[in-house]
Amino acid sequence: MHNNREHYGALIETGIVNLTEHLPEYDSLRAVLAAGSLNRAGDVALGESASFDLSEVTLLPPVPNPQKIICVGVNYIDRNDEYKDGSAAPEYPSIFMRTRESLVGHDRAILKPAESDQLDYEGEIAIIIGKPGRRIPVTEARAHVAGLTLMNEGSVRDWLRHSKFNVTQGKNFEASGSAGPWMVSVDEIGSFDDLELTTTVNGDVRQHDSTANLAFPFEYLISYLSTFMRLKPGDVISTGTPAGAGARFDPPTYLKAGDVVEVSCEAIGTLRNTVEDERSD
Amino acid sequence: MHNNREHYGALIETGIVNLTEHLPEYDSLRAVLAAGSLNRAGDVALGESASFDLSEVTLLPPVPNPQKIICVGVNYIDRNDEYKDGSAAPEYPSIFMRTRESLVGHDRAILKPAESDQLDYEGEIAIIIGKPGRRIPVTEARAHVAGLTLMNEGSVRDWLRHSKFNVTQGKNFEASGSAGPWMVSVDEIGSFDDLELTTTVNGDVRQHDSTANLAFPFEYLISYLSTFMRLKPGDVISTGTPAGAGARFDPPTYLKAGDVVEVSCEAIGTLRNTVEDERSD
Repeated sequence: MHNNREHYGALIETGIVNLTEHLPEYDSLRAVLAAGSLNRAGDVALGESASFDLSEVTLLPPVPNPQKIICVGVNYIDRNDEYKDGSAAPEYPSIFMRTRESLVGHDRAILKPAESDQLDYEGEIAIIIGKPGRRIPVTEARAHVAGLTLMNEGSVRDWLRHSKFNVTQGKNFEASGSAGPWMVSVDEIGSFDDLELTTTVNGDVRQHDSTANLAFPFEYLISYLSTFMRLKPGDVISTGTPAGAGARFDPPTYLKAGDVVEVSCEAIGTLRNTVEDERSD
Repeated sequence: MHNNREHYGALIETGIVNLTEHLPEYDSLRAVLAAGSLNRAGDVALGESASFDLSEVTLLPPVPNPQKIICVGVNYIDRNDEYKDGSAAPEYPSIFMRTRESLVGHDRAILKPAESDQLDYEGEIAIIIGKPGRRIPVTEARAHVAGLTLMNEGSVRDWLRHSKFNVTQGKNFEASGSAGPWMVSVDEIGSFDDLELTTTVNGDVRQHDSTANLAFPFEYLISYLSTFMRLKPGDVISTGTPAGAGARFDPPTYLKAGDVVEVSCEAIGTLRNTVEDERSD
Protein backbone atom coordinates (compact mmCIF):
# COMPACT_ATOMS: atom_id res chain seq x y z
CA MET A 1 0.00 0.00 0.00
CA HIS A 2 1.29 3.44 -0.95
CA ASN A 3 -0.90 6.50 -0.46
CA ASN A 4 -3.81 4.14 0.28
CA ARG A 5 -3.49 2.40 -3.08
CA GLU A 6 -2.67 -1.28 -3.27
CA HIS A 7 0.26 -2.29 -5.48
CA TYR A 8 2.50 -5.29 -5.82
CA GLY A 9 6.23 -4.99 -6.23
CA ALA A 10 9.71 -6.39 -5.85
CA LEU A 11 12.29 -5.51 -3.22
CA ILE A 12 15.67 -4.53 -4.69
CA GLU A 13 18.70 -3.09 -2.87
CA THR A 14 17.55 0.51 -3.13
CA GLY A 15 13.86 0.03 -2.36
CA ILE A 16 10.70 -1.34 -3.95
CA VAL A 17 9.99 -1.51 -7.68
CA ASN A 18 6.29 -0.91 -8.27
CA LEU A 19 5.36 -3.77 -10.57
CA THR A 20 1.73 -2.64 -10.81
CA GLU A 21 3.19 0.09 -13.02
CA HIS A 22 5.75 -1.97 -14.93
CA LEU A 23 3.63 -5.11 -15.37
CA PRO A 24 0.08 -3.70 -15.43
CA GLU A 25 -1.35 -6.85 -16.99
CA TYR A 26 -1.26 -8.39 -13.48
CA ASP A 27 -3.06 -6.85 -10.53
CA SER A 28 -1.34 -8.81 -7.76
CA LEU A 29 1.40 -11.30 -6.96
CA ARG A 30 -1.26 -14.00 -7.11
CA ALA A 31 -1.99 -13.06 -10.72
CA VAL A 32 1.73 -13.12 -11.54
CA LEU A 33 2.00 -16.62 -10.05
CA ALA A 34 -1.13 -17.81 -11.85
CA ALA A 35 0.42 -16.69 -15.15
CA GLY A 36 3.70 -18.47 -14.31
CA SER A 37 5.42 -15.08 -14.66
CA LEU A 38 7.44 -14.85 -11.45
CA ASN A 39 10.79 -15.04 -13.24
CA ARG A 40 9.66 -12.43 -15.75
CA ALA A 41 8.56 -10.13 -12.90
CA GLY A 42 11.97 -10.58 -11.30
CA ASP A 43 13.75 -9.72 -14.54
CA VAL A 44 11.62 -6.61 -15.01
CA ALA A 45 12.34 -5.49 -11.42
CA LEU A 46 16.10 -5.88 -11.89
CA GLY A 47 15.96 -3.56 -14.91
CA GLU A 48 14.17 -0.74 -13.07
CA SER A 49 15.08 1.69 -10.33
CA ALA A 50 13.18 1.73 -7.05
CA SER A 51 9.75 3.39 -7.11
CA PHE A 52 9.44 3.76 -3.33
CA ASP A 53 11.63 3.53 -0.29
CA LEU A 54 10.63 0.62 1.96
CA SER A 55 9.78 3.18 4.68
CA GLU A 56 7.19 4.86 2.44
CA VAL A 57 4.91 1.86 2.06
CA THR A 58 2.64 -0.23 4.25
CA LEU A 59 3.28 -3.91 3.60
CA LEU A 60 0.33 -6.24 3.20
CA PRO A 61 0.78 -10.02 3.46
CA PRO A 62 2.83 -11.15 0.41
CA VAL A 63 -0.32 -12.68 -1.09
CA PRO A 64 -3.12 -10.53 0.35
CA ASN A 65 -5.86 -12.44 -1.50
CA PRO A 66 -5.07 -16.18 -1.37
CA GLN A 67 -7.89 -18.60 -2.08
CA LYS A 68 -6.65 -20.85 0.72
CA ILE A 69 -4.55 -20.36 3.84
CA ILE A 70 -3.82 -23.85 5.11
CA CYS A 71 -2.18 -24.29 8.51
CA VAL A 72 -0.43 -27.29 10.01
CA GLY A 73 -0.69 -27.95 13.73
CA VAL A 74 1.79 -29.76 16.00
CA ASN A 75 4.48 -30.35 13.36
CA TYR A 76 7.79 -29.81 15.19
CA ILE A 77 8.53 -33.05 17.01
CA ASP A 78 9.09 -31.38 20.41
CA ARG A 79 5.67 -29.79 20.24
CA ASN A 80 3.68 -33.03 20.29
CA ASP A 81 5.47 -33.85 23.56
CA GLU A 82 4.53 -30.40 24.86
CA TYR A 83 0.84 -31.34 24.88
CA LYS A 84 1.63 -33.89 27.62
CA ASP A 85 -1.42 -35.92 26.65
CA GLY A 86 0.58 -39.12 26.30
CA SER A 87 -0.34 -39.42 22.64
CA ALA A 88 2.05 -41.06 20.19
CA ALA A 89 3.43 -39.01 17.32
CA PRO A 90 0.53 -38.52 14.90
CA GLU A 91 0.37 -40.51 11.68
CA TYR A 92 -0.86 -37.55 9.64
CA PRO A 93 -0.59 -33.77 10.07
CA SER A 94 -3.32 -31.77 11.78
CA ILE A 95 -4.77 -29.32 9.27
CA PHE A 96 -6.99 -26.24 9.65
CA MET A 97 -7.64 -23.09 7.66
CA ARG A 98 -7.47 -19.35 8.31
CA THR A 99 -9.19 -16.50 6.53
CA ARG A 100 -7.23 -13.75 4.80
CA GLU A 101 -8.71 -11.19 7.22
CA SER A 102 -7.08 -12.94 10.16
CA LEU A 103 -3.62 -11.83 8.95
CA VAL A 104 -2.00 -8.40 8.67
CA GLY A 105 1.32 -7.52 7.03
CA HIS A 106 4.74 -6.76 8.46
CA ASP A 107 4.89 -3.85 10.92
CA ARG A 108 1.09 -3.58 11.20
CA ALA A 109 -0.64 -4.01 14.54
CA ILE A 110 -1.81 -7.44 15.61
CA LEU A 111 -5.04 -6.97 17.54
CA LYS A 112 -5.90 -8.46 20.92
CA PRO A 113 -9.69 -8.80 20.83
CA ALA A 114 -11.83 -7.57 23.70
CA GLU A 115 -13.30 -11.08 24.02
CA SER A 116 -10.10 -12.71 25.31
CA ASP A 117 -6.90 -12.14 27.29
CA GLN A 118 -5.25 -15.20 25.73
CA LEU A 119 -3.75 -13.92 22.46
CA ASP A 120 -0.61 -15.99 21.77
CA TYR A 121 2.14 -16.05 19.12
CA GLU A 122 3.13 -18.98 16.90
CA GLY A 123 6.14 -18.28 14.65
CA GLU A 124 6.06 -20.32 11.43
CA ILE A 125 7.58 -20.61 7.97
CA ALA A 126 4.94 -20.50 5.24
CA ILE A 127 5.04 -21.88 1.70
CA ILE A 128 3.49 -19.90 -1.17
CA ILE A 129 2.36 -22.15 -4.03
CA GLY A 130 3.35 -21.24 -7.59
CA LYS A 131 2.41 -24.10 -9.87
CA PRO A 132 -1.04 -25.63 -9.31
CA GLY A 133 -1.51 -29.32 -8.83
CA ARG A 134 -3.37 -32.28 -7.41
CA ARG A 135 -1.80 -35.52 -6.12
CA ILE A 136 1.71 -34.08 -6.36
CA PRO A 137 4.45 -36.66 -5.65
CA VAL A 138 6.90 -35.73 -2.85
CA THR A 139 9.73 -35.75 -5.39
CA GLU A 140 7.99 -33.08 -7.49
CA ALA A 141 6.70 -30.95 -4.61
CA ARG A 142 9.46 -28.34 -4.62
CA ALA A 143 8.66 -27.43 -8.24
CA HIS A 144 5.20 -26.26 -7.04
CA VAL A 145 6.64 -23.72 -4.56
CA ALA A 146 6.95 -20.08 -5.63
CA GLY A 147 8.69 -19.00 -2.44
CA LEU A 148 8.64 -18.80 1.33
CA THR A 149 7.45 -16.20 3.81
CA LEU A 150 6.99 -16.05 7.59
CA MET A 151 3.81 -16.18 9.60
CA ASN A 152 2.84 -15.29 13.13
CA GLU A 153 0.00 -17.74 13.30
CA GLY A 154 -1.56 -15.80 16.17
CA SER A 155 -4.01 -17.77 18.26
CA VAL A 156 -6.67 -16.88 20.82
CA ARG A 157 -6.20 -19.82 23.16
CA ASP A 158 -9.51 -19.96 25.04
CA TRP A 159 -11.46 -19.73 21.75
CA LEU A 160 -9.41 -22.64 20.30
CA ARG A 161 -11.33 -24.86 22.67
CA HIS A 162 -14.84 -23.67 21.76
CA SER A 163 -15.28 -26.47 19.24
CA LYS A 164 -15.59 -30.14 19.96
CA PHE A 165 -13.45 -31.18 16.98
CA ASN A 166 -11.85 -28.02 15.56
CA VAL A 167 -9.68 -25.01 16.37
CA THR A 168 -11.21 -22.64 13.80
CA GLN A 169 -12.49 -19.94 16.15
CA GLY A 170 -9.25 -19.26 18.02
CA LYS A 171 -7.31 -19.16 14.73
CA ASN A 172 -9.52 -16.66 12.95
CA PHE A 173 -9.96 -13.50 14.97
CA GLU A 174 -9.57 -10.60 12.58
CA ALA A 175 -5.97 -9.27 12.48
CA SER A 176 -4.84 -11.75 15.15
CA GLY A 177 -1.84 -12.90 13.12
CA SER A 178 0.51 -11.73 10.39
CA ALA A 179 2.39 -12.82 7.27
CA GLY A 180 5.48 -11.35 5.67
CA PRO A 181 7.62 -9.35 5.50
CA TRP A 182 7.76 -10.52 1.85
CA MET A 183 8.10 -13.67 -0.21
CA VAL A 184 11.62 -14.90 -0.97
CA SER A 185 11.49 -16.84 -4.23
CA VAL A 186 12.40 -20.51 -4.04
CA ASP A 187 15.55 -20.14 -6.15
CA GLU A 188 17.04 -18.07 -3.31
CA ILE A 189 16.38 -20.85 -0.77
CA GLY A 190 18.49 -23.93 -0.21
CA SER A 191 17.15 -27.18 1.22
CA PHE A 192 13.82 -26.93 3.03
CA ASP A 193 15.21 -29.25 5.71
CA ASP A 194 17.61 -27.04 7.63
CA LEU A 195 15.92 -23.65 7.99
CA GLU A 196 16.24 -22.18 11.48
CA LEU A 197 13.22 -20.37 12.87
CA THR A 198 13.21 -18.05 15.89
CA THR A 199 10.39 -16.18 17.62
CA THR A 200 11.10 -13.40 20.12
CA VAL A 201 8.77 -11.33 22.30
CA ASN A 202 10.24 -7.97 23.32
CA GLY A 203 13.65 -9.37 22.38
CA ASP A 204 13.43 -12.57 24.49
CA VAL A 205 13.78 -15.79 22.52
CA ARG A 206 10.63 -17.87 23.02
CA GLN A 207 10.75 -20.33 20.14
CA HIS A 208 13.78 -21.69 18.29
CA ASP A 209 13.99 -24.80 16.18
CA SER A 210 15.02 -26.11 12.78
CA THR A 211 12.92 -27.60 9.99
CA ALA A 212 15.26 -30.60 10.38
CA ASN A 213 12.94 -31.47 13.30
CA LEU A 214 9.66 -31.39 11.39
CA ALA A 215 7.48 -34.46 11.69
CA PHE A 216 6.09 -33.63 8.25
CA PRO A 217 8.59 -31.83 5.96
CA PHE A 218 7.51 -29.22 3.41
CA GLU A 219 7.54 -31.59 0.43
CA TYR A 220 5.45 -34.15 2.31
CA LEU A 221 2.89 -31.48 3.27
CA ILE A 222 2.48 -30.39 -0.36
CA SER A 223 2.04 -33.97 -1.48
CA TYR A 224 -0.37 -34.84 1.35
CA LEU A 225 -2.56 -31.75 1.01
CA SER A 226 -2.76 -32.13 -2.76
CA THR A 227 -4.14 -35.64 -2.30
CA PHE A 228 -7.50 -34.05 -1.46
CA MET A 229 -7.20 -30.34 -2.39
CA ARG A 230 -6.12 -28.79 -5.66
CA LEU A 231 -3.27 -26.44 -4.70
CA LYS A 232 -3.44 -23.16 -6.63
CA PRO A 233 -1.09 -20.26 -7.31
CA GLY A 234 -0.96 -18.00 -4.26
CA ASP A 235 -2.23 -20.61 -1.82
CA VAL A 236 -0.39 -20.39 1.49
CA ILE A 237 0.66 -23.36 3.63
CA SER A 238 1.91 -22.44 7.10
CA THR A 239 4.08 -25.31 8.21
CA GLY A 240 3.67 -25.39 12.00
CA THR A 241 5.26 -23.78 15.04
CA PRO A 242 8.09 -24.93 17.35
CA ALA A 243 7.65 -25.51 21.08
CA GLY A 244 7.57 -22.42 23.28
CA ALA A 245 4.27 -20.61 22.67
CA GLY A 246 3.13 -18.49 25.63
CA ALA A 247 0.38 -20.94 26.57
CA ARG A 248 3.04 -23.51 27.51
CA PHE A 249 4.72 -21.35 30.13
CA ASP A 250 3.81 -21.84 33.78
CA PRO A 251 2.00 -19.58 34.35
CA PRO A 252 1.05 -18.85 30.71
CA THR A 253 2.34 -15.53 29.36
CA TYR A 254 -0.07 -14.15 26.82
CA LEU A 255 0.48 -11.13 24.60
CA LYS A 256 -0.59 -7.66 25.73
CA ALA A 257 -0.72 -4.25 24.10
CA GLY A 258 2.76 -2.93 23.33
CA ASP A 259 4.46 -6.33 23.05
CA VAL A 260 6.68 -6.70 19.97
CA VAL A 261 6.76 -10.13 18.34
CA GLU A 262 9.47 -10.97 15.83
CA VAL A 263 9.57 -14.14 13.72
CA SER A 264 12.91 -14.66 11.95
CA CYS A 265 14.52 -17.05 9.50
CA GLU A 266 17.87 -16.09 8.02
CA ALA A 267 16.87 -17.15 4.51
CA ILE A 268 13.67 -15.08 4.59
CA GLY A 269 13.98 -12.11 6.96
CA THR A 270 12.15 -10.88 10.04
CA LEU A 271 8.40 -10.43 10.44
CA ARG A 272 7.76 -7.88 13.18
CA ASN A 273 4.43 -6.83 14.69
CA THR A 274 3.33 -4.87 17.71
CA VAL A 275 0.27 -5.91 19.67
CA GLU A 276 -2.58 -3.42 20.16
CA ASP A 277 -5.90 -3.72 21.92
CA GLU A 278 -8.68 -3.92 19.36
CA ARG A 279 -11.27 -1.20 19.39
CA SER A 280 -14.58 -2.90 18.67
CA ASP A 281 -16.52 -1.58 15.70
CA MET B 1 -22.33 -22.05 -17.26
CA HIS B 2 -23.69 -21.91 -20.81
CA ASN B 3 -21.55 -23.02 -23.76
CA ASN B 4 -18.58 -23.16 -21.35
CA ARG B 5 -18.95 -19.51 -20.36
CA GLU B 6 -19.70 -18.55 -16.78
CA HIS B 7 -22.66 -16.22 -16.20
CA TYR B 8 -24.84 -15.28 -13.28
CA GLY B 9 -28.57 -15.02 -13.59
CA ALA B 10 -32.01 -15.14 -12.07
CA LEU B 11 -34.55 -17.94 -12.32
CA ILE B 12 -37.98 -16.78 -13.50
CA GLU B 13 -41.00 -18.91 -14.44
CA THR B 14 -39.93 -19.40 -18.03
CA GLY B 15 -36.21 -19.97 -17.51
CA ILE B 16 -33.06 -18.11 -16.58
CA VAL B 17 -32.43 -14.41 -17.22
CA ASN B 18 -28.74 -13.90 -18.03
CA LEU B 19 -27.82 -11.00 -15.74
CA THR B 20 -24.22 -10.98 -16.97
CA GLU B 21 -25.78 -9.43 -20.09
CA HIS B 22 -28.34 -7.16 -18.43
CA LEU B 23 -26.17 -5.99 -15.50
CA PRO B 24 -22.67 -6.19 -16.98
CA GLU B 25 -21.20 -3.97 -14.25
CA TYR B 26 -21.19 -7.06 -12.00
CA ASP B 27 -19.36 -10.24 -12.93
CA SER B 28 -20.98 -12.55 -10.38
CA LEU B 29 -23.65 -12.84 -7.70
CA ARG B 30 -20.94 -12.06 -5.15
CA ALA B 31 -20.29 -8.72 -6.87
CA VAL B 32 -24.05 -7.97 -6.91
CA LEU B 33 -24.23 -8.68 -3.16
CA ALA B 34 -21.11 -6.61 -2.46
CA ALA B 35 -22.76 -3.67 -4.22
CA GLY B 36 -25.97 -4.14 -2.23
CA SER B 37 -27.76 -4.59 -5.59
CA LEU B 38 -29.71 -7.80 -5.08
CA ASN B 39 -33.08 -6.07 -5.20
CA ARG B 40 -32.07 -4.18 -8.31
CA ALA B 41 -30.95 -7.42 -9.96
CA GLY B 42 -34.32 -8.95 -9.10
CA ASP B 43 -36.18 -6.00 -10.59
CA VAL B 44 -34.11 -6.19 -13.79
CA ALA B 45 -34.78 -9.93 -14.08
CA LEU B 46 -38.54 -9.46 -13.73
CA GLY B 47 -38.52 -7.01 -16.63
CA GLU B 48 -36.74 -9.37 -19.03
CA SER B 49 -37.62 -12.59 -20.78
CA ALA B 50 -35.65 -15.77 -20.17
CA SER B 51 -32.27 -16.04 -21.88
CA PHE B 52 -31.89 -19.78 -21.44
CA ASP B 53 -34.01 -22.74 -20.52
CA LEU B 54 -32.91 -24.28 -17.21
CA SER B 55 -32.06 -27.47 -19.14
CA GLU B 56 -29.54 -25.61 -21.32
CA VAL B 57 -27.22 -24.55 -18.53
CA THR B 58 -24.85 -26.20 -16.07
CA LEU B 59 -25.44 -24.78 -12.61
CA LEU B 60 -22.45 -23.83 -10.48
CA PRO B 61 -22.81 -23.29 -6.73
CA PRO B 62 -24.92 -20.10 -6.24
CA VAL B 63 -21.77 -18.24 -5.14
CA PRO B 64 -18.98 -20.07 -7.00
CA ASN B 65 -16.24 -17.80 -5.59
CA PRO B 66 -16.97 -17.13 -1.90
CA GLN B 67 -14.12 -15.86 0.26
CA LYS B 68 -15.26 -18.13 3.09
CA ILE B 69 -17.29 -21.32 3.32
CA ILE B 70 -17.91 -21.83 7.02
CA CYS B 71 -19.46 -25.08 8.21
CA VAL B 72 -21.12 -25.92 11.50
CA GLY B 73 -20.75 -29.42 12.95
CA VAL B 74 -23.14 -31.29 15.25
CA ASN B 75 -25.88 -28.63 15.31
CA TYR B 76 -29.16 -30.61 15.26
CA ILE B 77 -29.79 -31.70 18.83
CA ASP B 78 -30.30 -35.40 17.95
CA ARG B 79 -26.90 -35.49 16.27
CA ASN B 80 -24.86 -34.82 19.40
CA ASP B 81 -26.54 -37.89 20.94
CA GLU B 82 -25.64 -39.88 17.82
CA TYR B 83 -21.94 -39.61 18.65
CA LYS B 84 -22.60 -41.77 21.75
CA ASP B 85 -19.52 -40.32 23.44
CA GLY B 86 -21.47 -39.32 26.54
CA SER B 87 -20.63 -35.66 26.02
CA ALA B 88 -23.07 -32.99 27.15
CA ALA B 89 -24.57 -30.63 24.58
CA PRO B 90 -21.75 -28.31 23.52
CA GLU B 91 -21.63 -24.75 24.79
CA TYR B 92 -20.49 -23.36 21.43
CA PRO B 93 -20.83 -24.58 17.85
CA SER B 94 -18.10 -26.63 16.20
CA ILE B 95 -16.75 -24.69 13.21
CA PHE B 96 -14.60 -25.67 10.25
CA MET B 97 -14.05 -24.41 6.72
CA ARG B 98 -14.28 -25.85 3.23
CA THR B 99 -12.66 -24.70 0.01
CA ARG B 100 -14.71 -23.63 -2.98
CA GLU B 101 -13.22 -26.51 -5.01
CA SER B 102 -14.74 -29.03 -2.61
CA LEU B 103 -18.26 -28.18 -3.88
CA VAL B 104 -19.95 -28.66 -7.25
CA GLY B 105 -23.33 -27.31 -8.37
CA HIS B 106 -26.74 -28.94 -8.74
CA ASP B 107 -26.88 -31.97 -11.03
CA ARG B 108 -23.09 -32.23 -11.35
CA ALA B 109 -21.25 -35.37 -10.25
CA ILE B 110 -20.00 -35.65 -6.68
CA LEU B 111 -16.74 -37.58 -6.81
CA LYS B 112 -15.77 -40.54 -4.63
CA PRO B 113 -11.97 -40.30 -4.44
CA ALA B 114 -9.79 -43.33 -5.08
CA GLU B 115 -8.25 -42.85 -1.61
CA SER B 116 -11.38 -43.82 0.34
CA ASP B 117 -14.54 -45.94 0.28
CA GLN B 118 -16.18 -43.80 2.98
CA LEU B 119 -17.77 -40.90 1.06
CA ASP B 120 -20.86 -39.84 3.00
CA TYR B 121 -23.68 -37.28 2.55
CA GLU B 122 -24.68 -34.50 4.96
CA GLY B 123 -27.74 -32.52 3.87
CA GLU B 124 -27.70 -28.94 5.16
CA ILE B 125 -29.29 -25.51 4.74
CA ALA B 126 -26.71 -22.82 3.97
CA ILE B 127 -26.89 -19.08 4.57
CA ILE B 128 -25.46 -16.67 1.98
CA ILE B 129 -24.34 -13.39 3.52
CA GLY B 130 -25.42 -10.12 1.89
CA LYS B 131 -24.51 -7.26 4.18
CA PRO B 132 -21.01 -7.39 5.71
CA GLY B 133 -20.46 -7.06 9.43
CA ARG B 134 -18.51 -7.77 12.56
CA ARG B 135 -19.97 -8.38 16.03
CA ILE B 136 -23.52 -8.52 14.65
CA PRO B 137 -26.19 -8.72 17.40
CA VAL B 138 -28.59 -11.69 17.15
CA THR B 139 -31.48 -9.26 16.70
CA GLU B 140 -29.85 -7.76 13.60
CA ALA B 141 -28.53 -10.99 12.11
CA ARG B 142 -31.33 -11.60 9.62
CA ALA B 143 -30.62 -8.26 7.93
CA HIS B 144 -27.17 -9.59 6.96
CA VAL B 145 -28.60 -12.59 5.06
CA ALA B 146 -28.99 -12.35 1.28
CA GLY B 147 -30.68 -15.72 0.96
CA LEU B 148 -30.55 -19.45 1.57
CA THR B 149 -29.36 -22.41 -0.46
CA LEU B 150 -28.80 -26.12 0.19
CA MET B 151 -25.58 -28.00 0.67
CA ASN B 152 -24.55 -31.61 0.53
CA GLU B 153 -21.64 -31.20 2.91
CA GLY B 154 -20.08 -34.39 1.60
CA SER B 155 -17.53 -35.98 3.91
CA VAL B 156 -14.83 -38.60 3.53
CA ARG B 157 -15.20 -40.27 6.92
CA ASP B 158 -11.84 -42.00 7.36
CA TRP B 159 -9.97 -38.80 6.39
CA LEU B 160 -11.99 -36.81 8.97
CA ARG B 161 -9.96 -38.60 11.61
CA HIS B 162 -6.51 -37.92 10.16
CA SER B 163 -6.06 -34.83 12.34
CA LYS B 164 -5.66 -34.74 16.05
CA PHE B 165 -7.85 -31.65 16.47
CA ASN B 166 -9.54 -30.96 13.15
CA VAL B 167 -11.76 -32.46 10.44
CA THR B 168 -10.33 -30.43 7.53
CA GLN B 169 -9.06 -33.28 5.37
CA GLY B 170 -12.27 -35.30 5.21
CA LYS B 171 -14.28 -32.17 4.44
CA ASN B 172 -12.18 -30.92 1.55
CA PHE B 173 -11.75 -33.56 -1.10
CA GLU B 174 -12.25 -31.86 -4.43
CA ALA B 175 -15.87 -32.13 -5.67
CA SER B 176 -16.89 -34.21 -2.65
CA GLY B 177 -19.92 -32.02 -1.89
CA SER B 178 -22.34 -29.66 -3.57
CA ALA B 179 -24.28 -26.42 -3.14
CA GLY B 180 -27.43 -25.21 -4.85
CA PRO B 181 -29.64 -25.53 -6.78
CA TRP B 182 -29.83 -21.73 -6.43
CA MET B 183 -30.15 -19.03 -3.79
CA VAL B 184 -33.67 -18.08 -2.65
CA SER B 185 -33.57 -14.48 -1.46
CA VAL B 186 -34.40 -13.92 2.18
CA ASP B 187 -37.59 -11.97 1.44
CA GLU B 188 -39.08 -15.23 0.06
CA ILE B 189 -38.29 -17.10 3.29
CA GLY B 190 -40.34 -17.02 6.49
CA SER B 191 -38.90 -17.70 9.93
CA PHE B 192 -35.54 -19.46 9.98
CA ASP B 193 -36.81 -21.60 12.86
CA ASP B 194 -39.22 -24.00 11.17
CA LEU B 195 -37.58 -25.04 7.91
CA GLU B 196 -37.83 -28.78 7.23
CA LEU B 197 -34.82 -30.46 5.70
CA THR B 198 -34.78 -33.91 4.07
CA THR B 199 -31.96 -35.94 2.54
CA THR B 200 -32.67 -39.00 0.41
CA VAL B 201 -30.34 -41.53 -1.22
CA ASN B 202 -31.84 -43.30 -4.24
CA GLY B 203 -35.24 -42.11 -2.99
CA ASP B 204 -34.93 -43.50 0.58
CA VAL B 205 -35.25 -40.88 3.32
CA ARG B 206 -32.04 -40.86 5.36
CA GLN B 207 -32.19 -37.51 7.17
CA HIS B 208 -35.24 -35.48 8.16
CA ASP B 209 -35.43 -32.76 10.76
CA SER B 210 -36.50 -29.16 11.32
CA THR B 211 -34.46 -26.08 12.13
CA ALA B 212 -36.72 -25.87 15.20
CA ASN B 213 -34.31 -28.49 16.61
CA LEU B 214 -31.08 -26.59 16.04
CA ALA B 215 -28.83 -26.18 19.06
CA PHE B 216 -27.54 -22.95 17.46
CA PRO B 217 -30.15 -21.17 15.28
CA PHE B 218 -29.17 -19.22 12.16
CA GLU B 219 -29.23 -15.79 13.84
CA TYR B 220 -27.04 -17.05 16.68
CA LEU B 221 -24.51 -18.50 14.22
CA ILE B 222 -24.22 -15.18 12.37
CA SER B 223 -23.73 -13.31 15.61
CA TYR B 224 -21.25 -15.83 17.02
CA LEU B 225 -19.12 -16.14 13.87
CA SER B 226 -19.00 -12.37 13.43
CA THR B 227 -17.53 -12.04 16.92
CA PHE B 228 -14.21 -13.13 15.47
CA MET B 229 -14.61 -13.02 11.66
CA ARG B 230 -15.79 -10.20 9.45
CA LEU B 231 -18.66 -11.68 7.45
CA LYS B 232 -18.59 -10.53 3.83
CA PRO B 233 -21.00 -10.53 0.90
CA GLY B 234 -21.10 -13.99 -0.65
CA ASP B 235 -19.73 -15.79 2.39
CA VAL B 236 -21.49 -19.10 2.93
CA ILE B 237 -22.44 -20.56 6.32
CA SER B 238 -23.63 -24.17 6.19
CA THR B 239 -25.70 -24.69 9.29
CA GLY B 240 -25.20 -28.36 10.18
CA THR B 241 -26.76 -31.70 9.30
CA PRO B 242 -29.50 -33.77 10.99
CA ALA B 243 -28.96 -37.27 12.35
CA GLY B 244 -28.89 -40.09 9.81
CA ALA B 245 -25.64 -39.83 7.82
CA GLY B 246 -24.48 -43.14 6.36
CA ALA B 247 -21.66 -43.48 8.88
CA ARG B 248 -24.24 -43.92 11.68
CA PHE B 249 -25.90 -46.97 10.16
CA ASP B 250 -24.90 -50.40 11.41
CA PRO B 251 -23.13 -51.41 9.27
CA PRO B 252 -22.28 -47.99 7.76
CA THR B 253 -23.68 -47.41 4.27
CA TYR B 254 -21.35 -45.17 2.31
CA LEU B 255 -22.01 -43.67 -1.10
CA LYS B 256 -21.00 -45.52 -4.25
CA ALA B 257 -20.94 -44.65 -7.94
CA GLY B 258 -24.46 -44.24 -9.33
CA ASP B 259 -26.10 -43.26 -6.02
CA VAL B 260 -28.39 -40.22 -6.29
CA VAL B 261 -28.45 -37.89 -3.27
CA GLU B 262 -31.20 -35.30 -2.94
CA VAL B 263 -31.28 -32.57 -0.29
CA SER B 264 -34.65 -30.79 -0.08
CA CYS B 265 -36.27 -27.91 1.76
CA GLU B 266 -39.69 -26.74 0.57
CA ALA B 267 -38.74 -23.07 0.84
CA ILE B 268 -35.58 -23.54 -1.24
CA GLY B 269 -35.90 -26.49 -3.63
CA THR B 270 -34.00 -29.72 -4.20
CA LEU B 271 -30.26 -30.14 -4.65
CA ARG B 272 -29.61 -33.36 -6.56
CA ASN B 273 -26.26 -34.99 -7.34
CA THR B 274 -25.15 -38.34 -8.64
CA VAL B 275 -22.01 -39.98 -7.26
CA GLU B 276 -19.21 -40.94 -9.65
CA ASP B 277 -15.84 -42.54 -9.05
CA GLU B 278 -13.13 -39.93 -9.49
CA ARG B 279 -10.59 -40.49 -12.20
CA SER B 280 -7.26 -39.37 -10.77
CA ASP B 281 -5.40 -36.72 -12.75
